[in-house]
Amino acid sequence: MSSGLHGAFWVAGGRPGGHGRDMETRETLAVVMENPGAPLVLRRLPLPELRDGAMLLEPLFAEVCGTDVHLHHGRLAGVPYPIVPGHVSVGRIAELAGAPRDIDGRAFSTGDLVTFLDVHETCGHCYYCCVAKASTRCPSRKVYGITYSAGDGPLGGWAERVWLKPGVKAIRLPDNLSPESFIGGGCGAPTAFHAVRRARIAMNDTVVVQGCGPVGLSAVAFARVSGAGDIVVIGDPDDRLALARQMGADLAVSLGKTTPEGRLRTVRDMTGGRGADVVIEAAGNPAAIPEGMMLCRDSGAYVVVGQYTDCGPVEVNPHTMINRKHLDIRGCWGSDYSHFHGAIAAMARHQETFPWRKLAQWQYPLENAAAALADVEARRVPKAVIRIAGR
Amino acid sequence: MSSGLHGAFWVAGGRPGGHGRDMETRETLAVVMENPGAPLVLRRLPLPELRDGAMLLEPLFAEVCGTDVHLHHGRLAGVPYPIVPGHVSVGRIAELAGAPRDIDGRAFSTGDLVTFLDVHETCGHCYYCCVAKASTRCPSRKVYGITYSAGDGPLGGWAERVWLKPGVKAIRLPDNLSPESFIGGGCGAPTAFHAVRRARIAMNDTVVVQGCGPVGLSAVAFARVSGAGDIVVIGDPDDRLALARQMGADLAVSLGKTTPEGRLRTVRDMTGGRGADVVIEAAGNPAAIPEGMMLCRDSGAYVVVGQYTDCGPVEVNPHTMINRKHLDIRGCWGSDYSHFHGAIAAMARHQETFPWRKLAQWQYPLENAAAALADVEARRVPKAVIRIAGR
Amino acid sequence: MSSGLHGAFWVAGGRPGGHGRDMETRETLAVVMENPGAPLVLRRLPLPELRDGAMLLEPLFAEVCGTDVHLHHGRLAGVPYPIVPGHVSVGRIAELAGAPRDIDGRAFSTGDLVTFLDVHETCGHCYYCCVAKASTRCPSRKVYGITYSAGDGPLGGWAERVWLKPGVKAIRLPDNLSPESFIGGGCGAPTAFHAVRRARIAMNDTVVVQGCGPVGLSAVAFARVSGAGDIVVIGDPDDRLALARQMGADLAVSLGKTTPEGRLRTVRDMTGGRGADVVIEAAGNPAAIPEGMMLCRDSGAYVVVGQYTDCGPVEVNPHTMINRKHLDIRGCWGSDYSHFHGAIAAMARHQETFPWRKLAQWQYPLENAAAALADVEARRVPKAVIRIAGR
Amino acid sequence: MSSGLHGAFWVAGGRPGGHGRDMETRETLAVVMENPGAPLVLRRLPLPELRDGAMLLEPLFAEVCGTDVHLHHGRLAGVPYPIVPGHVSVGRIAELAGAPRDIDGRAFSTGDLVTFLDVHETCGHCYYCCVAKASTRCPSRKVYGITYSAGDGPLGGWAERVWLKPGVKAIRLPDNLSPESFIGGGCGAPTAFHAVRRARIAMNDTVVVQGCGPVGLSAVAFARVSGAGDIVVIGDPDDRLALARQMGADLAVSLGKTTPEGRLRTVRDMTGGRGADVVIEAAGNPAAIPEGMMLCRDSGAYVVVGQYTDCGPVEVNPHTMINRKHLDIRGCWGSDYSHFHGAIAAMARHQETFPWRKLAQWQYPLENAAAALADVEARRVPKAVIRIAGR
Repeated sequence: MSSGLHGAFWVAGGRPGGHGRDMETRETLAVVMENPGAPLVLRRLPLPELRDGAMLLEPLFAEVCGTDVHLHHGRLAGVPYPIVPGHVSVGRIAELAGAPRDIDGRAFSTGDLVTFLDVHETCGHCYYCCVAKASTRCPSRKVYGITYSAGDGPLGGWAERVWLKPGVKAIRLPDNLSPESFIGGGCGAPTAFHAVRRARIAMNDTVVVQGCGPVGLSAVAFARVSGAGDIVVIGDPDDRLALARQMGADLAVSLGKTTPEGRLRTVRDMTGGRGADVVIEAAGNPAAIPEGMMLCRDSGAYVVVGQYTDCGPVEVNPHTMINRKHLDIRGCWGSDYSHFHGAIAAMARHQETFPWRKLAQWQYPLENAAAALADVEARRVPKAVIRIAGR
Repeated sequence: MSSGLHGAFWVAGGRPGGHGRDMETRETLAVVMENPGAPLVLRRLPLPELRDGAMLLEPLFAEVCGTDVHLHHGRLAGVPYPIVPGHVSVGRIAELAGAPRDIDGRAFSTGDLVTFLDVHETCGHCYYCCVAKASTRCPSRKVYGITYSAGDGPLGGWAERVWLKPGVKAIRLPDNLSPESFIGGGCGAPTAFHAVRRARIAMNDTVVVQGCGPVGLSAVAFARVSGAGDIVVIGDPDDRLALARQMGADLAVSLGKTTPEGRLRTVRDMTGGRGADVVIEAAGNPAAIPEGMMLCRDSGAYVVVGQYTDCGPVEVNPHTMINRKHLDIRGCWGSDYSHFHGAIAAMARHQETFPWRKLAQWQYPLENAAAALADVEARRVPKAVIRIAGR
Repeated sequence: MSSGLHGAFWVAGGRPGGHGRDMETRETLAVVMENPGAPLVLRRLPLPELRDGAMLLEPLFAEVCGTDVHLHHGRLAGVPYPIVPGHVSVGRIAELAGAPRDIDGRAFSTGDLVTFLDVHETCGHCYYCCVAKASTRCPSRKVYGITYSAGDGPLGGWAERVWLKPGVKAIRLPDNLSPESFIGGGCGAPTAFHAVRRARIAMNDTVVVQGCGPVGLSAVAFARVSGAGDIVVIGDPDDRLALARQMGADLAVSLGKTTPEGRLRTVRDMTGGRGADVVIEAAGNPAAIPEGMMLCRDSGAYVVVGQYTDCGPVEVNPHTMINRKHLDIRGCWGSDYSHFHGAIAAMARHQETFPWRKLAQWQYPLENAAAALADVEARRVPKAVIRIAGR
Repeated sequence: MSSGLHGAFWVAGGRPGGHGRDMETRETLAVVMENPGAPLVLRRLPLPELRDGAMLLEPLFAEVCGTDVHLHHGRLAGVPYPIVPGHVSVGRIAELAGAPRDIDGRAFSTGDLVTFLDVHETCGHCYYCCVAKASTRCPSRKVYGITYSAGDGPLGGWAERVWLKPGVKAIRLPDNLSPESFIGGGCGAPTAFHAVRRARIAMNDTVVVQGCGPVGLSAVAFARVSGAGDIVVIGDPDDRLALARQMGADLAVSLGKTTPEGRLRTVRDMTGGRGADVVIEAAGNPAAIPEGMMLCRDSGAYVVVGQYTDCGPVEVNPHTMINRKHLDIRGCWGSDYSHFHGAIAAMARHQETFPWRKLAQWQYPLENAAAALADVEARRVPKAVIRIAGR
């Protein structure tokens, strides 16, 4: 008796518990998004035969993020519905074939606590991979939880087993990074890591982060790690702004309670009238773009990472905002293994300083994925986590 | 009896020839733009006492460029009218005080054929000069022909003598660079040099240049010098497109005879469907901006150098044009001595290959400065040159 | 009855002509270097079954380069003798399986004139590939003609057929690049392309190239393409220096007829006493290193690309040559597909300007590979080419 | 009755206290190093008339650093003995002429607590200043305490008054930076700041710092601020290694108690066998150079900042240490205002985390400058501070 995002939902094929042991090993329970707008359903999907290099992951946690809301609204092009959502997960290796290894050449074993890069099948053979060296624009790349069909297997995180195909880049969680901290960072962490690297923050740089969702919050922390001076975050609501301060922001400004002019004045007052050395857009609203340009000082840098869906155009003034400002504007798309690897290493080193784990406090069992999605959509929670272990 | 831009104009204080010899040495004839919209007038301005390091330049040629049209329309802020226009000139040293030297430490002598950087009084003491190292945004910088008042002396090129204040950065014209080639490049050459350096063109890069005015034409040549692969120029009218081909463009596309869609198709067809590695905007029209972004390949670079006056806003789509494209957009303001020095060196080495001198073919005597300005404004000529020597 | 490098050599298994048609298709004649110092032998090697994505190349030309001399002297570590030498070749596709494609996604066909990147099996999965993004240091990479054993198949260019394993990065020769010009550039061209890219040459930079072997000669041409100002090459003997001038050098200095002090004076005299903006070492002799450092101006760049075998240590003064000079020194190892692709594109565009084809004038049939190797070793020829087509 | 470095020393012209009020304002007591090897003497130097923009600083603290030892041994070229040593000082403005301003345009007042960039007279007019943009190589630059003669005035910090000539770049100490912390960083802080900026440390980079003198200690702290992962410092003696750990090093390795092979093994064991991403040389001993190259991972970066005097040559292997390693080696000379400004800002923000003030614990009155110098030379103290205030 589902009512879309908000209700409980139907388990196709009966109660999960009704199956025998050997059956369980070859099937997995997974949340399936059948079509944009359709209620989520819990289905049993067959597990694949594992070829050499493949693994099965038993997730502890999977993430619910803004992209999942966009997926449910059909806002992304080329999604092969039905899909199993969930692009970032962390869990234990339940099964493996051959000797899959991490980048240091160490073989994985069952029971290892791992996560994996959601991006797969980057071809290594096209102009973007080989010449432009911009592999996040490789046309062949696939993303777990987004561009794989449920018909191809459990290739998303909202499931009791996730099939890691041969070549998927998995990584052991470092001892000093808890699964809760990791999933609290979630997909926002490598995205933010990439944006902060692309910002080339130098010691003492004043940094403004537009947006305090998961990407913005990790961007604040990574900017702090990178040696930023004052960090200002702009966003809403208050609970996220409070989190932003814990993640390292010196000043958290409410978007709703201020005007663009007021925010510009605030930032200029902090910077001798000049504006921020670096602004990172993680807001998603096109209106953030001209404001972000103006918040930069002349010859500063503006990284645009939050506009990952098409929310329409916005007016900018090329004279005052780009040319005369001698501004560097850097679009930042996706992330590759280096960002994923780096985000994990940075979170491990700094998890005691920056409370990523608090972003994992809103947990839902697999059956309540629809509620998780609804809460994220309604912005009742900064992010939601599907808790799967121990079912 | 002047009729604004189009007529001959009145010489304040009587005929120049009516003065005695010793008087001439302490006065100079100069074109004065008294106010936006007002007719140009030819005036005698007193020559300053030369302090240690100062020089008097006897120009052979001075330039009339688009900025002068903007100045005559009052479109630039903070201009201390009346002014002597003309920011780039080339001529001979008529007089000097002390031992002014070039950057190699060689003292200048009277009779030397020199030009000088129009930008002066960059302070070397502010945040932009000292910390951001973006001296073209130094708030103290002055520009000959634009931000000096005629009341302060002959500090613009449309004059029989130009006062080079102490510290002005002058440079001898290399033997292999004719004054005609130099002034043909004019102020567009260092601007384009800066833009091409900022574009970081790599060997084989497909480059699109938007605009075929003086900046665009030099950008084509410098892109070619820098190792570009195919170069496409987009602009009008036909005579400038023909010049663009002589300056190194492989393909010259008429803006008026094509559509944005058609131009995008043309560029993509040349690049395996991807778009240009580098696009340089030298058009000045805000509409060029979204088109230029789309003409770039993903992870390409877009240098915005033509929007030096405020022609209003334009709509861009931050998702498709910046973020998903992983685009680098680089505003490029002004030029410093390194660009001026570099442009001269590159023009000297390559003047036989690229016909900068042809841009100096439309020459006007000082008395006809108004006609020169009118012809530039009406786009009857790509650029105009004031010929001063031999009066 | 071979006498090492200098004699004719024995064809294992009898005369090539003695075999029937169907036999020919599954075997190929290849030159085999059985061990360091041992005479080269001509052997029949079995051809592999082609798996999906594999191709057989029928070379027109293969290269003999300094590395082959080093291989014959056993100076490289980890070479699995016996090997089929020859790492760069150009020829026609004789056979293929499945639909191997180039980086633009266009399928290859039999008869296509192609070459291929000698580096293969870069893993895409290690720290250097994924995090450091320095794939030329990937420990898994293999190189045709060097790190494959003849026992594994014809995986070197000195053969009538070369097996391009699945995933080998092949590229069609552009219409405007002749096979002679391509092989004249040979392996030196991508190496030099990489070095010149790493040098980040800017317009007008004075460039010194140490060495006028194949790498040095292409470095001169690519530096010229990249916008260099004066280019000085230092090397010997005279015929190579003459070639260097044809490849774009303004000044060619004989190493043997000058002293280090004299060369330093020459370069400083050309640069206002400062030294070169960029020096590229392509000499191979450790003694070039301290001299190259001194030839750079303060805050210049020194690219070290010629020291690809261990010829022992050399003394440098860290105060005067590195620290006080504020020098950038950049080791440059190997090349990846982007350099190979770029070198081909640049050679295609500029083959009429720079006579790479002249480097392919010393041609030897497959049976005379030993003589080719001997002539290269004795420096009787700048490089040697094995001509295979039409046997 | 001085006995060289170790004794008290003679005050030329009698006791300071013996002078009347108006005399005091026009003279100052200063330590003078008359010649290499000669005993330091305390002299009265006349104070200059202050021209517009000049200031007199009343130092609280001045620094004694390794350079001062080198000066006393005559190891630097071109020093115009006699000199007043002391290149970095902090104190209060005692007097000023005109309206000298900081880089934000705020006028200074008497009583302001300031420091100033020891480098002065960078010309802004030469090739290095204007084209190469490497102003630390400007041939005109002067350095307080090193390249000014005592005959020109009190232009060094070991004095009761220091003459800040017009244009000297002074800066107010931020409220959150104590004079003790500032002088604890001393000249090593901007040097280290420059080196760390030049190292372009990215988040998680493993960093090795060779040397734990003042430059090395600040390099450790700034590497930590910049987001480094593990930091290893190599040096001696134990008390400095203990300080290095407080400044942010994870591991402090005694140079004397280990071998180069052992240190290489230690660093490789921490980095999956690869070596450090970044090594910063702040040791001064040429032997550090080949070791530092080997401590870097392939494609890593090595910054050489400690070789500021000529201690002779050292052997390096260009194949294994530079070329095959694909290493970036970056000499780093001096510092400019941006490094000075940045070091102060970073020290202010982080003085509670990193105990720069502990480096200022060894204080000596002006009369005991010789003892301070002797203790630094004998490495009895990591650094010495001249305490001047309140005399």
